Amino acid sequence: MNDQLEKNLSRFISLSKSEGESFFQACTYRKLKRKEFLLKEGEVCKFTSFILKGCLRYFYNVEGEEHTGQFFFENSWYTDYESFLSGNPSQQNIDALEPTELLLIQKQDLEKLYDLNPKIERFGRLMAENAYMGVRKKNENLLNLSPEERYLKLIKERPKVIERVSQHYIASFLGIQPQSLSRIRKRISENR
Amino acid sequence: MNDQLEKNLSRFISLSKSEGESFFQACTYRKLKRKEFLLKEGEVCKFTSFILKGCLRYFYNVEGEEHTGQFFFENSWYTDYESFLSGNPSQQNIDALEPTELLLIQKQDLEKLYDLNPKIERFGRLMAENAYMGVRKKNENLLNLSPEERYLKLIKERPKVIERVSQHYIASFLGIQPQSLSRIRKRISENR
Repeated sequence: MNDQLEKNLSRFISLSKSEGESFFQACTYRKLKRKEFLLKEGEVCKFTSFILKGCLRYFYNVEGEEHTGQFFFENSWYTDYESFLSGNPSQQNIDALEPTELLLIQKQDLEKLYDLNPKIERFGRLMAENAYMGVRKKNENLLNLSPEERYLKLIKERPKVIERVSQHYIASFLGIQPQSLSRIRKRISENR
Repeated sequence: MNDQLEKNLSRFISLSKSEGESFFQACTYRKLKRKEFLLKEGEVCKFTSFILKGCLRYFYNVEGEEHTGQFFFENSWYTDYESFLSGNPSQQNIDALEPTELLLIQKQDLEKLYDLNPKIERFGRLMAENAYMGVRKKNENLLNLSPEERYLKLIKERPKVIERVSQHYIASFLGIQPQSLSRIRKRISENR
């Protein structure tokens, strides 16, 4: 068993040693270099990934521009859940912004675990509920907050993004040009 | 057991007669008149509802205007899932657009059923996954389609809305004025 995975799963469900081992056995290890892709648009996302180390980002290609959707760091899960659930080709690109290490679990293997163990089924329910809450929260931020307000929220709630992610990716996430982000940062530092 | 509920559940899971009965026993029957509220903003949504008959709608109050989010008819489930999951006060208003009959199940009773029966846990997972897909699809439509395209999609995919819901609620759902909807309808009928 992997310690990080064990600790993460224990936040959701309480598995015995052998149950944890079965989960871990269903995972495969994957290493990505910086800028390497985990998924490209048009591919079906058949796995979910647990990040051991590093940083994943997803983005959409919109008329030749990258629109960054979100950043994920060690000890969190990410998949293009829509493609994962529907089996439709993904519209997302997922790449690594740092050298990244992952545990991947394939959809078919996760479904076998759902059948075998109601605790894993519960884990699946809680992950689906979290994904739902995530997408609702993201929408609300996009609808109700200005880029500057979203940047302030990022500083407060997700300091890792500020510390570890390049300015131009943060600008892309906020939906603004890097120059606009510089102006926002200047304004904030002057007001402190 | 209620026939409609039984048929609906069987689309997701296969319950024995007594398991189905336990689920049904956890439900309470509720009747709403037209325009009666099931939930008002500021209340916590502590239940999910299965519609036996009629039509529910949810809307947000935005600066004194009703912004209609969606319509739901007999044999479908609806809850403000965000408030239901988080326990935070809802920003939604849910009302009945027709005389409506519901089966409600309280969150605490559903959670007891999750504990008792892994099949119900699976039902919970599938509902969470559906809710996720629903919100993703809704966002994509809002982002990528014009009001006219969304109206055409409604005609094609959800004819019940066209048949049973008043024009001014449909206009509110499309985010346009009733006069604009009249123009769209005229244009469409001329082009057929």
